[in-house]
Amino acid sequence: MKKYNFYAGPSILSEHTIKNTAEAILDFSGMGLSIMEISHRSKEFIAVMEKAQLLFKELLGIPDGYSVLFLQGGASLQFCMVPYNLLVNKAAYLDTGSWASKAIKEAKIFGEVDVVASSKDSTYGFIPKGYKIPSDADYFHITTNNTIYGTEIKKDIDAPVPLVADMSSDIFSRPMDVSKYALIYGGAQKNLAPSGVTFVIIRNDILGNVSRPIPTMLDYATHIEKESMFNTPPVVPVYAALQTLEWYRQKGGVGAMHRENNEKAELIYGEIDRNKLFEPNVKDPEDRSIMNVTFVMNHHYKDLESEFLAYATEKGMVGIKGHRSVGGFRASIYNAMPLSGVEALVEVMKEFEKKH
Amino acid sequence: MKKYNFYAGPSILSEHTIKNTAEAILDFSGMGLSIMEISHRSKEFIAVMEKAQLLFKELLGIPDGYSVLFLQGGASLQFCMVPYNLLVNKAAYLDTGSWASKAIKEAKIFGEVDVVASSKDSTYGFIPKGYKIPSDADYFHITTNNTIYGTEIKKDIDAPVPLVADMSSDIFSRPMDVSKYALIYGGAQKNLAPSGVTFVIIRNDILGNVSRPIPTMLDYATHIEKESMFNTPPVVPVYAALQTLEWYRQKGGVGAMHRENNEKAELIYGEIDRNKLFEPNVKDPEDRSIMNVTFVMNHHYKDLESEFLAYATEKGMVGIKGHRSVGGFRASIYNAMPLSGVEALVEVMKEFEKKH
Repeated sequence: MKKYNFYAGPSILSEHTIKNTAEAILDFSGMGLSIMEISHRSKEFIAVMEKAQLLFKELLGIPDGYSVLFLQGGASLQFCMVPYNLLVNKAAYLDTGSWASKAIKEAKIFGEVDVVASSKDSTYGFIPKGYKIPSDADYFHITTNNTIYGTEIKKDIDAPVPLVADMSSDIFSRPMDVSKYALIYGGAQKNLAPSGVTFVIIRNDILGNVSRPIPTMLDYATHIEKESMFNTPPVVPVYAALQTLEWYRQKGGVGAMHRENNEKAELIYGEIDRNKLFEPNVKDPEDRSIMNVTFVMNHHYKDLESEFLAYATEKGMVGIKGHRSVGGFRASIYNAMPLSGVEALVEVMKEFEKKH
Repeated sequence: MKKYNFYAGPSILSEHTIKNTAEAILDFSGMGLSIMEISHRSKEFIAVMEKAQLLFKELLGIPDGYSVLFLQGGASLQFCMVPYNLLVNKAAYLDTGSWASKAIKEAKIFGEVDVVASSKDSTYGFIPKGYKIPSDADYFHITTNNTIYGTEIKKDIDAPVPLVADMSSDIFSRPMDVSKYALIYGGAQKNLAPSGVTFVIIRNDILGNVSRPIPTMLDYATHIEKESMFNTPPVVPVYAALQTLEWYRQKGGVGAMHRENNEKAELIYGEIDRNKLFEPNVKDPEDRSIMNVTFVMNHHYKDLESEFLAYATEKGMVGIKGHRSVGGFRASIYNAMPLSGVEALVEVMKEFEKKH
């Protein structure tokens, strides 16, 4: 039976990424050695690192003056690196979920934090609007996609201060205007690579304003200067990221990914809205994530929840259990999820409706 | 032609590690999914993490009261995490090389640093002895193996204060008495795994003395409490580490590795001492690393350096060029290097001598 991987992250990667990475583990670049055991200073690996940075820039249309970094520690380490490097007096944060709230917690260690709006009281079921970004903030931080709740900021916003975005789970899902951001970061384990590599897109001129001493590894300037090779980078995850980037180019770039993502999202949200057994967590279509689709049983059918989970799992739908904080179900339909996977899930939802 | 991988790191890994990791990239644990795309919260991956921690403890005989952590960021991030968590007033460091000196630089951000001894003036060609560890230091930091210079502290030393060791490049090379250490850390890309995972062995009771606020990701207490699963761990490197640990057990544990390492080291140092073309960088046998063997051309034959490098490379000896700061050659003979690799290199050295 065909299995479909709906895990929220680490999550589905393209066959291209998986196959090429497995091959490089056995023999990298015709060297007769595994990519796991070659020097990161070898010309073969330096070429990987350079190509990955270039493709990142090409696919997202990153303007001059920005650097692309491949670091370690996940978005969680960025939660402290961002204020370490950028927070002089005050930072503004939008609280759209548990990851945003973790970022806020770390920023408070370094200075004043102004939480401009929060949807916490509604279990983060929508993206707050109409908030005001203080013009004296050192930066404004947003989490563009909220994997647990299924909300997403799907447009590049305008901010009167440097905009910092955690895009761990929706980078490469749509074309974007990078020039509106001062810094974009994310763990790679959604739309890019296995866990273990963290991407950072940074406008070089935003650094140098804080007076606190910054440990070398936590200083973005270190990694910009050394082009992500200050210390040994996570070689295998970076190689896998390059494979995904090449696959994106082959598929037609982020514009093509966006069209497919919208098609997948419309199909599944359409079914959730239509099917009498289910209802969406996120009511406002504007806020609905095209990466993580969260839904629950309609209140008349609450007792069918575990039965549907078992039924769908048996039909090959892997990882659709919702996060414990919202319950129900979550179908993560990242870039590498084919339309056929979403069609299969919708079919299972229809079949289950017929049974009841 | 058979190639032998003498890279200093990332470096040679066992066939067992390479083959099993490549297989898991294609299909992990019979799940029908790649290990790159499964949730780190899946029971299959939790089992990997737990087994790796247990085997670490078993192989090194780690006493109760210690935790084994798998983190990110390499030894370079530990250089700041150690003082962040442990430096109240003053720390003592032994300066045995460029990595030790980088660790010292980071510690100075957090407090007073007493460098008890240094061999810097002799290009770090020996391990300083007869130094005094101040009894009021919060900890004493050593780098047990110095990859660039080829020196090694091959015995567990006694310290009157908590002992902290960077064992990036010699962990698992010999049986050791972990109870003499408060904290041991290292990048895994020598004797354990591909780059991207950092091991930390920590005595739990050494924490809690500093008053500075510690960012969550930099606080060892976070990772002890969450058993290295606070955020998404580097799944592939951790899996590869487990394969190496299982291979060590199959080979008879660290005692067996130590016997083999000594045999390899005696063979190559013996040839360097005997062969008229070469001379060792490290004169005192007590200080000679059994992991990284550094040597140069004898001063009568200096002009043969690039010829020997080309000759050896042509014969399949990969990565034996010495680090630019010491020149000459470096044969890294980590645990996974078979005796036959060292025999092949010695044969090449003998052949080259015959030619001249």
